[in-house]
Amino acid sequence: MAHDKGVTPRADDYSQWYLDVIAHGDLIDDAPVRGCKVLKPHGYAIWEAIQQGLDARFKETGHVNAYFPLLIPMSFLSKEAEHVEGFAKECAVVTHHRLRAMDGGVEPDPASALEEPYVIRPTSETMIWHMYGRWIDSWRDLPILINQWANVVRWEMKTRPFLRTTEFLWQEGHTAHATSAEAEAETMQMLDVYATFAEEVLAMPVIRGRKSAAERFAGAVETYTIEAMMPSGWALQAGTSHFLGQNFARAFDVTFQNESGERDHVWATSWGVSTRLIGGVVMTHSDDDGLVLPPAIAPVQVVIIPVYRLKDQAVVMEAVNALFRSLKGRFRVKVDDRDNLRPGAKYFEWEQKGVPLRLEVGPRDVKQGQAFAKRRTGGDKFGIAFDGAADRVAEVLDEIQVGLLQAARDARAARMHEVSSREEFASRIVSDSGFYRIPWGGDDADEDALKSETKATLRCYPEGEGPVEGLTCPLTGKPAHAWALFARAY
Amino acid sequence: MAHDKGVTPRADDYSQWYLDVIAHGDLIDDAPVRGCKVLKPHGYAIWEAIQQGLDARFKETGHVNAYFPLLIPMSFLSKEAEHVEGFAKECAVVTHHRLRAMDGGVEPDPASALEEPYVIRPTSETMIWHMYGRWIDSWRDLPILINQWANVVRWEMKTRPFLRTTEFLWQEGHTAHATSAEAEAETMQMLDVYATFAEEVLAMPVIRGRKSAAERFAGAVETYTIEAMMPSGWALQAGTSHFLGQNFARAFDVTFQNESGERDHVWATSWGVSTRLIGGVVMTHSDDDGLVLPPAIAPVQVVIIPVYRLKDQAVVMEAVNALFRSLKGRFRVKVDDRDNLRPGAKYFEWEQKGVPLRLEVGPRDVKQGQAFAKRRTGGDKFGIAFDGAADRVAEVLDEIQVGLLQAARDARAARMHEVSSREEFASRIVSDSGFYRIPWGGDDADEDALKSETKATLRCYPEGEGPVEGLTCPLTGKPAHAWALFARAY
Repeated sequence: MAHDKGVTPRADDYSQWYLDVIAHGDLIDDAPVRGCKVLKPHGYAIWEAIQQGLDARFKETGHVNAYFPLLIPMSFLSKEAEHVEGFAKECAVVTHHRLRAMDGGVEPDPASALEEPYVIRPTSETMIWHMYGRWIDSWRDLPILINQWANVVRWEMKTRPFLRTTEFLWQEGHTAHATSAEAEAETMQMLDVYATFAEEVLAMPVIRGRKSAAERFAGAVETYTIEAMMPSGWALQAGTSHFLGQNFARAFDVTFQNESGERDHVWATSWGVSTRLIGGVVMTHSDDDGLVLPPAIAPVQVVIIPVYRLKDQAVVMEAVNALFRSLKGRFRVKVDDRDNLRPGAKYFEWEQKGVPLRLEVGPRDVKQGQAFAKRRTGGDKFGIAFDGAADRVAEVLDEIQVGLLQAARDARAARMHEVSSREEFASRIVSDSGFYRIPWGGDDADEDALKSETKATLRCYPEGEGPVEGLTCPLTGKPAHAWALFARAY
Repeated sequence: MAHDKGVTPRADDYSQWYLDVIAHGDLIDDAPVRGCKVLKPHGYAIWEAIQQGLDARFKETGHVNAYFPLLIPMSFLSKEAEHVEGFAKECAVVTHHRLRAMDGGVEPDPASALEEPYVIRPTSETMIWHMYGRWIDSWRDLPILINQWANVVRWEMKTRPFLRTTEFLWQEGHTAHATSAEAEAETMQMLDVYATFAEEVLAMPVIRGRKSAAERFAGAVETYTIEAMMPSGWALQAGTSHFLGQNFARAFDVTFQNESGERDHVWATSWGVSTRLIGGVVMTHSDDDGLVLPPAIAPVQVVIIPVYRLKDQAVVMEAVNALFRSLKGRFRVKVDDRDNLRPGAKYFEWEQKGVPLRLEVGPRDVKQGQAFAKRRTGGDKFGIAFDGAADRVAEVLDEIQVGLLQAARDARAARMHEVSSREEFASRIVSDSGFYRIPWGGDDADEDALKSETKATLRCYPEGEGPVEGLTCPLTGKPAHAWALFARAY
C-alpha cells in the first residue's frame, strides 16, 4: 500500500523515507547550488509559523530585532581563537566585486579583487561584538537584548535537507550584560523558551542539558542544548543557548563602566534555532503515508473537500462556503474545489501534505447538517455539525496536538536505554539506537575515543538528574562524575 | 534651537540633515563592511511594520512566500543578455569555500577554489526561473504566485543610508502565467498594491507610471514604477513592477502545454520594494527636530511619560500603569519610567525617535483624570481623559496619519513644474528642483543627452495624463509623443 503511494516505508529505509516524506509533502526542492535547497511555499509556511511563534516569545521576554551585515571582514574571524578554529574550514569567501565578459560568458574581473576578502556569516558573534563595542560604554547601556532573523552559510561537506544544508535560515540572539549571573540567567531563560516552544508548538519533546567541552560552540564558556530523539534512534540537536562569558568582549575589547565606576569586560550570550527544526518536526511525527504536522504549525490546519455529482453542486458548495466562513477567522483553512481531481486524489494529496484535519461535505452530509471529518493521525471518520463547527474543530485540533506530543514522548521513552558494559554499548548503539543514559566517568580523550569507536557522541549532561556519586562508569570503568546522554546524532 | 539639538537644519544642508535625522533617530549605524549599514532595533522595527503590512496585502492577492538560495551560479547571469549587462558590474563573487591559517590570521585556502564561482544574488530572476523550469509543465501548474523576503547585494560605488547600500533587505515577487494578458494584469495589480500601501501606510504620495527604455529593469519588457518626491526636490523610485514577457522563460527554456495542447513559453512578472522605503518615509515627514514617523509604521506610536516628585510617585504610577493597560492591546505603546533622566530629556529623545504622540501624566493630571498630550507634528498640548483614552488616541493618531499625507501632497504639489524651453529647464532643475511635467518628444538619444547635460532623468510616463497630440516638446523642439516626468533622482 505505502509503496503504491510512493513513500518508502520507514522500516525499509529510514533515510529514503525521510526524503520521500518531504518530497511528497512538497516542502523542498533541489537547488543548483552545492548543498542548498529551495524552500517551497508549503515548507516555507512552516518556517513562517515557527518564526511567528518564536518571535512573539522573544519579544515577551524583552528582546528586539535588528539586522547586521551578511558579509564579515575575514580578519574578524581570527579575533577569537576558538571561533576561527571552529568556522574557518566552512566559510564561503567573497573575493571580487565585479564580473567581466569572457567567451560569451562571464568571469570574476581580476581588477575587482578585494584588498580584504569577506566571508558570508556562518554566525554573527564577531560582527555583532564589533558593533556592541560602539554601543556600550556604561552600565546604563546594558543589557542589550537583540535577536536577528537571517540566512547563514556554512560550507558543509555532507548535507541532508533541513538538518544540514550549506545555507540555512535561522535566528541568532546576541545579548550583552553587566554581570556573569545576568548573562547565565539569560542563557537559561532562552533554553527554556526553546524547550517550551518545542514541546508546546512542535509537539517535539526535548531533553535540556549542558554540552561537554568537545561539543561546545566555538568561543563559548558553556553551551546548553535541547536534544530531541528521532524515530531513527538518532538524536537531533534542536537548539542551543551559549554562555559566552567575556570571550567575545575581550576579543573585540568591549568594556563598560560599572556602577562603582570601574571598567570591566561585558558578559555575553548567544542562542539560535534554525530551519533544522522543520526536519525535526517532520521526522518526529510523519508516517508511511507521508507528512504529519502538528496543528500549531501546519500551514493548512483544515481542508474542506466538497464531494458531489453535478446536480448537487449548488447545495453542496453553499454549505461548504458557509462552513469555510465559519472557520476562516480562527483556523488556517482551505477549500479544495478543483474540478479536475476526484475526491480520492485530493484526500491523498492533502494527507501527503500533512494537513491535520479533513472535512468532507457531500449532499447527504448537507441534509444531516454536518461534515464528515477525518484526522490525519488516524481513527474513524466522524461527524462535525455545521452548527458550532469552529468550537468542535478547535477541540479536535487540540486533541491531535496533544496526541502527537504524547506519541512522541512514548516513542522517546522506548528509546531511553542503559547499559552495563562498553561492549554492550558498542553493539546496542547500532542494533537498538536511542539515548543511552550513562553515569559517565570519562574525560575528553575518553569521549573522543568512544566517538571514533561507536560514532556516538555525548549529547548532553541532562538537567535534573540525581546524584551520580559512588557509581562506576560502564563505558570507561572509572568513577562516574556526571550523568550523561550518549547517542548517534544528525 | 535646532542646532543645539544636533540635527542640522534641512535648509542649511539637506544631505547632512538626512544623516542627522537617522542618526539621532537611532535607526542605523555604520558597519565595517563597504557600503553596508547596521539596522538598529528602532530602524529594523520600521521594516517589520512595513513587512507585516505588505505581506498581508500580498497574501490577500493570492501570493505565497518561499525561499530560494542566496548564491547563484555565475553562468546563470549570462543566460539573459540584458540582465547580465545590468548586473555584472556590481556582483559580489564567492570564489573559495575555506580559510586557512596564515601569519596569525587567515586567508582563502587556494585548494578550496570553486570550479564555478557563485554570485550573491543581486535579484533572483535567474535562480527562480531555473526552478520554475522544474515546476511548470502544463497550464494546470499556472499561475505561480510566489514572493520572497530576502537580502540582496549590489556592489554600489556611491551609497546613502537606506536609499542605496551594498546589502539591503527587500521582497521580490516572481510570478508565472499562461498568458501575456494575465501577466500584465498582475504587473499592474502589484503596482497598485505598492501605490496604495505607500499612500495609506507610509503617508507618502506617489505617482504611478511606466519607465522609459533607458530606465527599464535589465531583462524586462516594461517596468512600472511608483515615484515619490522628496523635500530636496529629488525623486525617489520607491517600488517597481516589471512585465518580463517571455524573456526569462526563453533564457531558461521554461515552456508549458496550454489547454489546446500546444507548448508555449511562460509569461512572467517580478516586483519589489526594499528598505529604501524607510529612507523615503524618513525624508518625506521629518523636520529640523529630527525623525517624524506616520503612526501606521511607528515602532512606538504612543509614549507615556510620568512626571512627578517622589511623594507623588505612587499615585502617578498607578494612573500611568492603568493608562498603559488601556492602550497596550490596541497600540504600540511604551512607558518611559527611567529614573535617571528628567522629563525634558525624555521628551527630546522620543521626539528625535519620531514617536507620533506623547502623553505626560503628573499629579495634577491624575486629579483631573486626564493625560496631557503632545503631537510630534506640532500644535498645542491638549488633555486626553483616562476614561475612553483608547478611542481618543485612535482618533488623534488617525488625524496625524491623514495630516502627514496631506502635508506631503501639498509639498509635492509645490514641486510640480512645467517649463517652456530647454534653457529654462537646465537652470530651474537646479534652482527649483522637483517634478517637471513635459510633453516629451525625444528619443533614447535625446534622453541620454539631457541626462548628461542636467543630471535629470525621465522618471516615468505618468498614468492618467490627457492627450499630448499637437504639442511641441520644450526640451527637444520635436512633436510630443507622451507626457513625461523629469527630475533629479536618488
